[in-house]
Amino acid sequence: MTKAIVLLSGGLDSTTCLYWAKNQGHECYALSFDYGQKHRSELNQAKIIAKAAAVKEHKIMQLSMDLIGGSSLTDDTLIVPNAGEQMGVPNTYVPARNTIFLSIALGWAEVLNCHNIIIGVSAVDYSGYPDCRPEFITAFQNLANLATKAGIEGNQFYIHAPLAKLTKQQTIQMGLSFGVDYSQTISCYRANTHGEACGTCDSCNLRKQGFKAQNIADPTRYISNN
Amino acid sequence: MTKAIVLLSGGLDSTTCLYWAKNQGHECYALSFDYGQKHRSELNQAKIIAKAAAVKEHKIMQLSMDLIGGSSLTDDTLIVPNAGEQMGVPNTYVPARNTIFLSIALGWAEVLNCHNIIIGVSAVDYSGYPDCRPEFITAFQNLANLATKAGIEGNQFYIHAPLAKLTKQQTIQMGLSFGVDYSQTISCYRANTHGEACGTCDSCNLRKQGFKAQNIADPTRYISNN
Repeated sequence: MTKAIVLLSGGLDSTTCLYWAKNQGHECYALSFDYGQKHRSELNQAKIIAKAAAVKEHKIMQLSMDLIGGSSLTDDTLIVPNAGEQMGVPNTYVPARNTIFLSIALGWAEVLNCHNIIIGVSAVDYSGYPDCRPEFITAFQNLANLATKAGIEGNQFYIHAPLAKLTKQQTIQMGLSFGVDYSQTISCYRANTHGEACGTCDSCNLRKQGFKAQNIADPTRYISNN
Repeated sequence: MTKAIVLLSGGLDSTTCLYWAKNQGHECYALSFDYGQKHRSELNQAKIIAKAAAVKEHKIMQLSMDLIGGSSLTDDTLIVPNAGEQMGVPNTYVPARNTIFLSIALGWAEVLNCHNIIIGVSAVDYSGYPDCRPEFITAFQNLANLATKAGIEGNQFYIHAPLAKLTKQQTIQMGLSFGVDYSQTISCYRANTHGEACGTCDSCNLRKQGFKAQNIADPTRYISNN
């Protein structure tokens, strides 16, 4: 049985990836980050999901990215916009976030003698973040194999992005085929401490559209006044 | 005046880089990591050095890499070897450390609108760490420009490794020409809480040889019983 580390935020995409990895036959290790995100209640969901999926280990790393700021997800002086409110890359972009998360996953992978890292990025229904594109994933995999003792010894690392070319609807289809319970997941950038979603941010909007396109009931728990 | 982030451990190499960056005319930001290293007294020296060099800002990020372990620098179950005791890459190698440190520097750089990151790696007098080689630096720079909003908008990041091809002696020569006070620096993997060096680990050994080759007094404060 090969090992895999899955970056698990507690959202729809990363949860689908976790079940994809299980379905591939991997022994799964989940990695989450308490990185100063305003919507850190997602970590409660990540714990529930990791337990339900019976991962081998779930690690939550502390990382004070709020000390750096520069994103409305981590910086109190910036406001999370509604879907479509900002042109181009919205201010929910967290500078270098996926690079940082993958780097730490790489370190853990090398210690575990694990050579598969799975990340739930997609370049179809997404917010235009540069570190969600396939060329980023390819460049990171290239780096990983130059950066590590295992890599230069020929024990290659593979960065898997199984959702890379999927729409949100297709991601949901895939997850349902693996038995994902999407009521456990939270994708909202403004999630409250009860794990309820705003329904209006970009992430909520993409998720909503996915369930709508699939023509199934949206199991998301929304904040009641929305 | 262009900005630069310098990765500053408090050691000989990173301190030389800081002064190199100043000499290049950069406005310098120093970034250190409290990453679970046993020799964390190096951070006291980093603070002294950053202040002496009058950096614009010195940030110390918390990062619990000891939760991952796998290196004698962060893992209580592994012992830091003496110089030459281990063949190949010694167990002082910290999996993916430079990738992680550069990634976090990249995040801060993007927020600061800074496009220069400086790291004190060398592939001459070093311990064989894969993430100290020029091909790693090149791959990281390539990644940085794909991973970020600034990068894809054409505002390139540059990863500078000014010591890449220098021996320890040449590094010391360069630092002295910029007025570095090496008595402020500590390179030891076993540094005690007073910032004193063991004199026998690989890092101490490389440093000792550098001062010897340069034929100047070694200003390192060694633990008295060595």
